[in-house]
Amino acid sequence: MKTRKAEIVCTGSELLSGKINLYMPLFHAHLSRLGFEIAREQSCGDSLASIKDCLAGAMARSRLVIACGGLGPTFDDLTRQAAARLLDRRLVHSEACAQILRHNYGLAELPPNFSNQCLIVEGAKQLENANGTACGQVLTGKGRMLVLLPGPRREWEPMFASFLDREITEFFGSAVPVTQIKLRTAGLKEPEAEKLAKPAMSRFPSLRYTILAGPGTVDFIISGDDKRGLVTRAAAACRKILGPSVYGQGELTLAGALGEKLKLAGRTVSGAESCTGGLVSQLITENAGSSDYFNGCAVTYSNAAKSALLGVKRSTLEKFGAVSAECAAEMAAGARKAFGSDYAYSVTGVAGPGGGTEAKPVGLVYFGLAGPGMKKIYSRKFRGERANIRTSASNFILDELRKVIK
Amino acid sequence: MKTRKAEIVCTGSELLSGKINLYMPLFHAHLSRLGFEIAREQSCGDSLASIKDCLAGAMARSRLVIACGGLGPTFDDLTRQAAARLLDRRLVHSEACAQILRHNYGLAELPPNFSNQCLIVEGAKQLENANGTACGQVLTGKGRMLVLLPGPRREWEPMFASFLDREITEFFGSAVPVTQIKLRTAGLKEPEAEKLAKPAMSRFPSLRYTILAGPGTVDFIISGDDKRGLVTRAAAACRKILGPSVYGQGELTLAGALGEKLKLAGRTVSGAESCTGGLVSQLITENAGSSDYFNGCAVTYSNAAKSALLGVKRSTLEKFGAVSAECAAEMAAGARKAFGSDYAYSVTGVAGPGGGTEAKPVGLVYFGLAGPGMKKIYSRKFRGERANIRTSASNFILDELRKVIK
Repeated sequence: MKTRKAEIVCTGSELLSGKINLYMPLFHAHLSRLGFEIAREQSCGDSLASIKDCLAGAMARSRLVIACGGLGPTFDDLTRQAAARLLDRRLVHSEACAQILRHNYGLAELPPNFSNQCLIVEGAKQLENANGTACGQVLTGKGRMLVLLPGPRREWEPMFASFLDREITEFFGSAVPVTQIKLRTAGLKEPEAEKLAKPAMSRFPSLRYTILAGPGTVDFIISGDDKRGLVTRAAAACRKILGPSVYGQGELTLAGALGEKLKLAGRTVSGAESCTGGLVSQLITENAGSSDYFNGCAVTYSNAAKSALLGVKRSTLEKFGAVSAECAAEMAAGARKAFGSDYAYSVTGVAGPGGGTEAKPVGLVYFGLAGPGMKKIYSRKFRGERANIRTSASNFILDELRKVIK
Repeated sequence: MKTRKAEIVCTGSELLSGKINLYMPLFHAHLSRLGFEIAREQSCGDSLASIKDCLAGAMARSRLVIACGGLGPTFDDLTRQAAARLLDRRLVHSEACAQILRHNYGLAELPPNFSNQCLIVEGAKQLENANGTACGQVLTGKGRMLVLLPGPRREWEPMFASFLDREITEFFGSAVPVTQIKLRTAGLKEPEAEKLAKPAMSRFPSLRYTILAGPGTVDFIISGDDKRGLVTRAAAACRKILGPSVYGQGELTLAGALGEKLKLAGRTVSGAESCTGGLVSQLITENAGSSDYFNGCAVTYSNAAKSALLGVKRSTLEKFGAVSAECAAEMAAGARKAFGSDYAYSVTGVAGPGGGTEAKPVGLVYFGLAGPGMKKIYSRKFRGERANIRTSASNFILDELRKVIK
């Protein structure tokens, strides 16, 4: 079965001048459950012509179009007008909307600024808004559906469960939903990861593959119709070929995967960080329940702190410097002891942009791991800016740590 | 003068299936400096037809079109092909690109997976990529400009300063740029901040104002033609009315503002964190040069670590618990001593979702500050999810710390 296509049109000048659009993952989640794939998203400003043009393009291409925003009571809320013009219909007063508003706001009569909120496109089915004044509107015809939703998330999102899921399924018929599996890997470069996985992917050519590279990570998103278990089998094949580089699936993070291994093994961890400044520790503690396995971390930026809190020897700092394999080893051992944990990691390097030398350039990072009967030292040279070096270094040691936990 | 219109086309199936597009505020900032307003944004998947269609629409409407993404070495990177088909040009090997890649990667000969990276649309001017393998491409003709940029921010963003600002200004002529001033405040709620600033904003009605609320922060973006110093004057008026809540302008972060105060005062700081897990420390050390004023931080997740590293008394933990004003005070004093810094901050609270009680609910956070002749304790109750509580708490203490530095 072919996947059904939907498009999203977001209106609001703020989306083009500084505000991040946080809605697409939400629309994706709602629509993929209903068997729709989002084929395109458009954001336009609060102009009637622009909104109408976006809607026209989307409806020409896709059978389901959702417009979000521009249903408020103010002068720059123009989505209902744009939809009416596009479909060549009138805007009419909806007594049903007025009744809902009077009921929800406990008013005998509606104030003038509510009158816009009772206008619907002729023939639209209205969707009650439990958290605001703008009702949603569903317009159908010629096998297509146009849905107008208010902008705030708390207003539009509940409309899926209460009305839209049913409206969409009734109109389009229920579908085999698109299944999506996201395999997450670390320690591979993007071309290398793709080359490895290619034989597995080519065995399932009807599926779609997206490859996403992050700092030290590569995700494979496999999606399609899972009727005959195709997506599951393709994911298993990729997983097998990618081996221990796969640290998890879905929204599991590297730190989350580490946490699961620690919980399973009944082990604790602590850390010592210099150039990452607490980023590894912050990533570990993003996970609820991390207090079960994370004792803490010493962020030792100064040499004095490295000695005082972690017991790094003054002679080590003098002879090899803070950015050295020797210092990394003592930091990891010191953290393990100071926090009384089973395992400990350490990171010390040059995050830049300043502080690099010929012998120790920006991007050079040393790592240490210490655990029951084990010690490891690594050095890596990362590219890019300070933020990228810090994130790459954090991901690197989270991945190595995950691999050694027993 | 009429503002010039630009459009953005973002490619990548991930943008339609779960990933948030973080780039629009960045493009807005770069383009408004050059006198362009973004008229529309489109996101499409990794399909040749779809990318071509988005580009065609954008180029028909706007004189400047920027496409971001889809220039990588893998099979689903199709933007250069789409641009070539749209403009009816060939893809050609660029020896200049090859030379840059050989030089940047120190290779005598390029491996096969780099060959895609040397393909440019015939007639394109290439923009060197200092942080990756995909060069940018600038295509001009019939008074229009199409720019192809690689997807990762660290790759495309530096291209504005090094090449694109000049390319765009040379092609379109320099414009009275839209001047934009972003005032950053902390410690105010959005409606409160807006109400405060309203009298100042209404004195300059020809300007545009955007208000952006974050966790514990509110930004005012004031933009318009600064020919007669209007934007500057409006910003000064808002700044005056908002008083010490304004911590900075532009891209200065709260931690950056704190760093500037510490440098100016010649003071050092250290920290002790429990529920924020190193987030405050990580934010402080995002700033290059923070080693000048940041000694370190003890992330003490366990009670044992609070005692061992920070000297929090066992009796305090037993009597008041780790989430208490008493513990926060001892943590701050302990950090100041352990790291030998002038100032120290502490954070201890319930980040949730678990661990809350009636007396100490999720979101309750205690903070301590210690410095020369000063001690302060705060408690706040934050709303929202774990991540929001942690970020709100971090922003709160960074702001309070900034205010006490002398």
